[in-house]
Amino acid sequence: MLSKSKIKYIQSLRQKKYRDEAGVFVAEGPKVVQEFLESPNIKLEDLFFLKGSNGFNGTAISSIELEKISGLVTPNEVLAIFRKPVYDSIASPEGKLSLALDSIQDPGNLGTILRTADWFGIEQVFCSLDTVDVFNAKVVQSTMGSIGRVQVIYTDLPALIAEYPGLPVYAATLDGDDLYTMERPSNGLIVIGNESRGVSEAVLSKATHKIFIPRKGKAESLNASVAAAIILSEFCR
Amino acid sequence: MLSKSKIKYIQSLRQKKYRDEAGVFVAEGPKVVQEFLESPNIKLEDLFFLKGSNGFNGTAISSIELEKISGLVTPNEVLAIFRKPVYDSIASPEGKLSLALDSIQDPGNLGTILRTADWFGIEQVFCSLDTVDVFNAKVVQSTMGSIGRVQVIYTDLPALIAEYPGLPVYAATLDGDDLYTMERPSNGLIVIGNESRGVSEAVLSKATHKIFIPRKGKAESLNASVAAAIILSEFCR
Repeated sequence: MLSKSKIKYIQSLRQKKYRDEAGVFVAEGPKVVQEFLESPNIKLEDLFFLKGSNGFNGTAISSIELEKISGLVTPNEVLAIFRKPVYDSIASPEGKLSLALDSIQDPGNLGTILRTADWFGIEQVFCSLDTVDVFNAKVVQSTMGSIGRVQVIYTDLPALIAEYPGLPVYAATLDGDDLYTMERPSNGLIVIGNESRGVSEAVLSKATHKIFIPRKGKAESLNASVAAAIILSEFCR
Repeated sequence: MLSKSKIKYIQSLRQKKYRDEAGVFVAEGPKVVQEFLESPNIKLEDLFFLKGSNGFNGTAISSIELEKISGLVTPNEVLAIFRKPVYDSIASPEGKLSLALDSIQDPGNLGTILRTADWFGIEQVFCSLDTVDVFNAKVVQSTMGSIGRVQVIYTDLPALIAEYPGLPVYAATLDGDDLYTMERPSNGLIVIGNESRGVSEAVLSKATHKIFIPRKGKAESLNASVAAAIILSEFCR
């Protein structure tokens, strides 16, 4: 049986403040939990599974208990608490292709972008300090485990860029160079901006290149995760 | 003032059944409503705006009334009811590039895919009968008006394909040909499958080509709207 204080603790992890304090995050559902269990960078702290379901080691709980601790509308068999990944070193963005997210607000977009980055073998994603938390439940559920493979670093983006003077920095904008015909080196930082405002002036002024995805139809803009995907596909092909 | 029956009618439009009966859909917020007002294929039926806000013709209502009729967590100034678009003819998929969605379930994915199709100048999107309703509020809000420009046709996909024997049909799969190196003609049907099951066997067996987006990293799959975007970018460049 789960103690009241344990239930309260797990519920508190829905808020960033308490996740940060405890250095942990929550994942739910057999598929997502299994992905994290297999990740070398992520350590399990606690696991709760529905009595009668198989395949997990942890504490068997009742469906009423699972409902209490789950953040999902439909709880899904297993809930695990993992320690946030700790990396030996934060590698520099030099000599490879990385992604930078400048104030992405939608958890679904962040999750989708990490999954796409993981698909294309991107190892590091730098997020501005006001980008949505990667350990937000919606992000964790939509990355499908990519959080365990892609290093996500929250940092001041203009300061990061200033640290590496020779680094090519590509900002996705609505008035840049044609993505398909521009020179696309295999290293540098690709910056995707906020869902409605785009890349901030502070970052844009430090970008070495501006990228535009040529438009043939009439939509006013592309979704941020779609723009990230098209650009990554083009740079990584 | 809004009558009780009017409020009830507008609230009922959150359900597909009542939207279908009335042949209308609801859009909210100045930006989204404006996009539909400018669309030649879509006729306004009724418009309600918050007393004191400018720029719209219709019925001025109080914030309490707007809260009652709005489906948004945070009502946004204006709510309009539009007639579903009626097209003079449903053009055939021959001689151009179209998209087919095979059981897309997530409204956000459908909205994002329509917006991407609109960006790349795709004029028709064929949806399997079990694809989520395009007039679902979440889809309407996330397409940013693309519904007014892209013709969305719900139909039996295997039957549609059978009608056009020479039509190239490209199914996105995890075991197809390399998207980047395959021959990519400027006409045909690109099929994107369900978020977890992919393209159905019934459609896959009728496809003339299978497409795979080469993977360099370790993610198990790509989000459906991301896969659609990468493939459209490649075919339309």
